[in-house]
Amino acid sequence: MAKAKRIFSLLLRLLALGATLSAAIVMVTSHEKAKFFAVSFEAKYSNTPAFKYFVIANVIGGVYSFLVLFLPPKSMLWRLVVALDVIFTMLLTSSISAALAIAYVGKKGNSQAGWLPICGQVPKYCNHVSVALAVGFIGVVIYMLLLLYSIHTALNPLLV
Amino acid sequence: MAKAKRIFSLLLRLLALGATLSAAIVMVTSHEKAKFFAVSFEAKYSNTPAFKYFVIANVIGGVYSFLVLFLPPKSMLWRLVVALDVIFTMLLTSSISAALAIAYVGKKGNSQAGWLPICGQVPKYCNHVSVALAVGFIGVVIYMLLLLYSIHTALNPLLV
Repeated sequence: MAKAKRIFSLLLRLLALGATLSAAIVMVTSHEKAKFFAVSFEAKYSNTPAFKYFVIANVIGGVYSFLVLFLPPKSMLWRLVVALDVIFTMLLTSSISAALAIAYVGKKGNSQAGWLPICGQVPKYCNHVSVALAVGFIGVVIYMLLLLYSIHTALNPLLV
Repeated sequence: MAKAKRIFSLLLRLLALGATLSAAIVMVTSHEKAKFFAVSFEAKYSNTPAFKYFVIANVIGGVYSFLVLFLPPKSMLWRLVVALDVIFTMLLTSSISAALAIAYVGKKGNSQAGWLPICGQVPKYCNHVSVALAVGFIGVVIYMLLLLYSIHTALNPLLV
């Protein structure tokens, strides 16, 4: 039973690793050149601080998931892992929310602030970013499940 | 000892209640009329979806903190509270990150996307929003401490 639980949790961590790293890679590779009237510009993730933060957070989350895979099952560090899961879930939640907020302005604009949507000019870039955000969202959901699962298994013996 | 822990945790929840509700109130009351060339406009939180989300998340977080204050110490529901703390901490983290991302564009603009900063036109509004975000940030930190503390107290008996 304990072994099945361990395999399930490792599987979730592998999925989390895949999702966070894919999100970072898709975001980094998103760029498109466009002409707006006479001005040619290149849309890329590094122009937007929120997208840079998204990439950094997902790389950190991926590296953390990778390291945890090699933690021996009996290690005392597993206690720390629950606390670290909280920190990294918050980091990923924060990064995807910031990126989504900016992507929303990119798609819809904000007429009161005079910010025009840019997705009409750079549709390929926008699609690329959307995919990165969708994959990043899956990563956050997996992290949340992992955290709730850790809390569940940690609290269960106390209540039986 | 158990009583001291309980008082400490209730105190944190009271602080969280205060911080989340203050953040929501400060954000809701932020507005400023300004003239930009010939166009007069009013900057208010409800023009920005991310700020609306911030207000809603903080009100939900505040109501949750309030309800938990009345939970009897021996209730079985405390087990659920740890899981709910995870959910609400993520909700607040997400809302403040989205609001901060938009506030950053409001302050600095994004020249590649052609989004101009608006804080020069509506400085009072910007200050008001900054205060709301700072108070909201304190709320998130208190929630994170609460969560790490709950996890610590829940896991401790297992490891002694």
